[in-house]
Amino acid sequence: MRLSSFLLPVSKNNPQDAQIVSHRLMIRAGMIYQNTSGIYSYLPLAQRVIQKLDHIIETGLNKIGCQRITMPTIQPASLWIESGRYGDYGKEMLKFEDRHDRPLVYGPTHEEVVTDIARAYIKSYRQLPKILYQIHWKFRDEIRPRFGVMRGREFLMKDAYSFDETEQGARHTYEKMFNAYLDIFKMMGLNVIPLKADPGPIGGDLSHEFHVLADTGESELYYDEAFHELQPQDMTMEKLTQLYAVADDQHDPYQCSIPKERLKSRRGIEVGHIFYFGDKYTKSMNMITVNSKGEPIHPQMGSYGIGVTRLLGAIIESSHDAQGIIWPKEVTPFQVGLINLKEDHKVKADELYHHLLDHHLSCLYDDTDEGIGKKFSTMDLIGLPLQIIIGDRIQENLVEIKIRHTGDRHIMSMTDAVKFVEDFYM
Amino acid sequence: MRLSSFLLPVSKNNPQDAQIVSHRLMIRAGMIYQNTSGIYSYLPLAQRVIQKLDHIIETGLNKIGCQRITMPTIQPASLWIESGRYGDYGKEMLKFEDRHDRPLVYGPTHEEVVTDIARAYIKSYRQLPKILYQIHWKFRDEIRPRFGVMRGREFLMKDAYSFDETEQGARHTYEKMFNAYLDIFKMMGLNVIPLKADPGPIGGDLSHEFHVLADTGESELYYDEAFHELQPQDMTMEKLTQLYAVADDQHDPYQCSIPKERLKSRRGIEVGHIFYFGDKYTKSMNMITVNSKGEPIHPQMGSYGIGVTRLLGAIIESSHDAQGIIWPKEVTPFQVGLINLKEDHKVKADELYHHLLDHHLSCLYDDTDEGIGKKFSTMDLIGLPLQIIIGDRIQENLVEIKIRHTGDRHIMSMTDAVKFVEDFYM
Repeated sequence: MRLSSFLLPVSKNNPQDAQIVSHRLMIRAGMIYQNTSGIYSYLPLAQRVIQKLDHIIETGLNKIGCQRITMPTIQPASLWIESGRYGDYGKEMLKFEDRHDRPLVYGPTHEEVVTDIARAYIKSYRQLPKILYQIHWKFRDEIRPRFGVMRGREFLMKDAYSFDETEQGARHTYEKMFNAYLDIFKMMGLNVIPLKADPGPIGGDLSHEFHVLADTGESELYYDEAFHELQPQDMTMEKLTQLYAVADDQHDPYQCSIPKERLKSRRGIEVGHIFYFGDKYTKSMNMITVNSKGEPIHPQMGSYGIGVTRLLGAIIESSHDAQGIIWPKEVTPFQVGLINLKEDHKVKADELYHHLLDHHLSCLYDDTDEGIGKKFSTMDLIGLPLQIIIGDRIQENLVEIKIRHTGDRHIMSMTDAVKFVEDFYM
Repeated sequence: MRLSSFLLPVSKNNPQDAQIVSHRLMIRAGMIYQNTSGIYSYLPLAQRVIQKLDHIIETGLNKIGCQRITMPTIQPASLWIESGRYGDYGKEMLKFEDRHDRPLVYGPTHEEVVTDIARAYIKSYRQLPKILYQIHWKFRDEIRPRFGVMRGREFLMKDAYSFDETEQGARHTYEKMFNAYLDIFKMMGLNVIPLKADPGPIGGDLSHEFHVLADTGESELYYDEAFHELQPQDMTMEKLTQLYAVADDQHDPYQCSIPKERLKSRRGIEVGHIFYFGDKYTKSMNMITVNSKGEPIHPQMGSYGIGVTRLLGAIIESSHDAQGIIWPKEVTPFQVGLINLKEDHKVKADELYHHLLDHHLSCLYDDTDEGIGKKFSTMDLIGLPLQIIIGDRIQENLVEIKIRHTGDRHIMSMTDAVKFVEDFYM
């Protein structure tokens, strides 16, 4: 992509109303535009990251047999009356009527809709277990939207819903989903800590939150230092839930099960939340399935969320410096930024750009006539993991590669630079 | 994908309220579930086709330099008041207020929102032309939703918006988009006819609709028979707009510019609509850009829609038979269906299934214990272009391939069958 034709409205100035760093950087890097309070448009740079997150989530969930669907944003209010939750979200749930005065809501979550679908089709234990998911927009009318995409009103979420014949089966599905979450966050290049959590208005007795560590996080987490010494084979629900980890509202220093010297505390941002709540909805909404003994049962359900647009903010909170964003290479909008410093070198720069594309590497090519300082600061701000800079040494066929995270610079030939980028992403 | 774990709620019975064949087949093939009047959930089979359509549209638009974004479904009413269109959609536009009594609408289209974004960032002719697009959900509160996804209330649309410095530039962009549409529909395996159209509430003086031909189409089209003799090199706006083609409301037999014997008439379904409307929105919303002479101007705009969920219906209307859907190979949810007729052959069937996956071929494998008749009718109903049937001749290592469209059957070895599928999709 040539920067001259890309919509990247970067800005030097910090927006006044942005209180947290991810909000500031997303505005400054031209990722989002606020249409009205808590409602954003996602501009091309953000769109590219969203599509990568979507792809990683889809890959992780399809791997364990989840099936993707799309449910509507607008739901009939009658389903919420049936489940008994019509009042639970209060004014956070947007309620209105259509032209025929039928009451509708903009879905803040989809337990009711998915249970309505499942009860129409899932009649026998032979059709279980089933995990259905969507990656779709939701609306919660927050009283005071803030922190950019972290607490917006319209937001993108992955929400999955599981149906099982038995409690044992449902707890096994919960564990499969827990492990898929570990896999998904790892594919995104993120370290997350799963916490025992309060199920809140979703209900049930088993619930975990997944938090990305970031100094600017919204909650204080208390956890076993062993989390920082985990090996790949430890990344399972079975192992991780043996370690102490809770948010501040659940932490009681006098009741804590581990010695003080092993207790660590850091701030975190919630990016996922999973729930097991048994027959709460299948019972209230009367979903009946025949079990393997021929008896009618209400299937056991769980639900599993990941905040996709929230992840944009959380990733930036956990990975940035004074110059701007530092994208994990797994989710970067482009793999490499190419900066041409002089009009004279345009032919060579174009040549390298096409080499990179020929090697299926995504590249944002700064071909503009901006000054050198602006080019460097823009590229640092938008945070691509690698930069290739074409300066006067191109006459000797040499370019400079800068690693955004460490600031390390290496001089090498054009051919080696392409190889370097390829190897970096292997 | 194994059918035993796939959510595919097929049905033999025609739903009573479904008046058109695509609606009937989408319900019967387990593609959609109606949540309430005109509002659907898209089940896994439909989801897979939607994602293919999304990918093809993205490919076609990115190729000509369009940039993907996502704008919100919920828009501030103030933008519509500014553009002067707040009343234009009448009760079709869903209007409501948030918890702070601020008026909002669920966007039926996004000219206002995109102009608001563009006026914030596009200040100079150097940033033009720009084409921004999204593939996103819209809501139009149809008074009488019907025909399934063809006239639903919540629907998925690709909407693109172009900004140019001059009228000449805008007309050139319009032509580029027209040609990209031809390319996109070709990539979907569809024949479309572009018609001169009435701009309607979007405004402007230049507009075309793209129609898929189908006997059950909503409009009667009148066009030059030359459309059926086009060569690949004729597929350009320049060539096609020289041919006569209009819908019934624009056709006057006494004014028709071609001789009667060249005039053909068939029914069609609108799947795309493009508009050039100059400064209609940039003027009313006061978007000002400096042109190459240093003067302030209102940029010239166009907008360009493709109905994505509507395409599901249109494709089925144009490609089905008495047994069910016949997917064009470009958009089929799976490339091949594998039917195992006997439990005895399970090992061989599993082996072939894994061969197909190893060759990166998508396969829906009927591993259920349903009867043979049900297996055949389900596979015909859901319309995958190829079926592989494993019967008793598997003992000689032979399987049968059925081509859904023609009904032709071929006996061959397992290895040849994989090769056959690969070649079919080359």
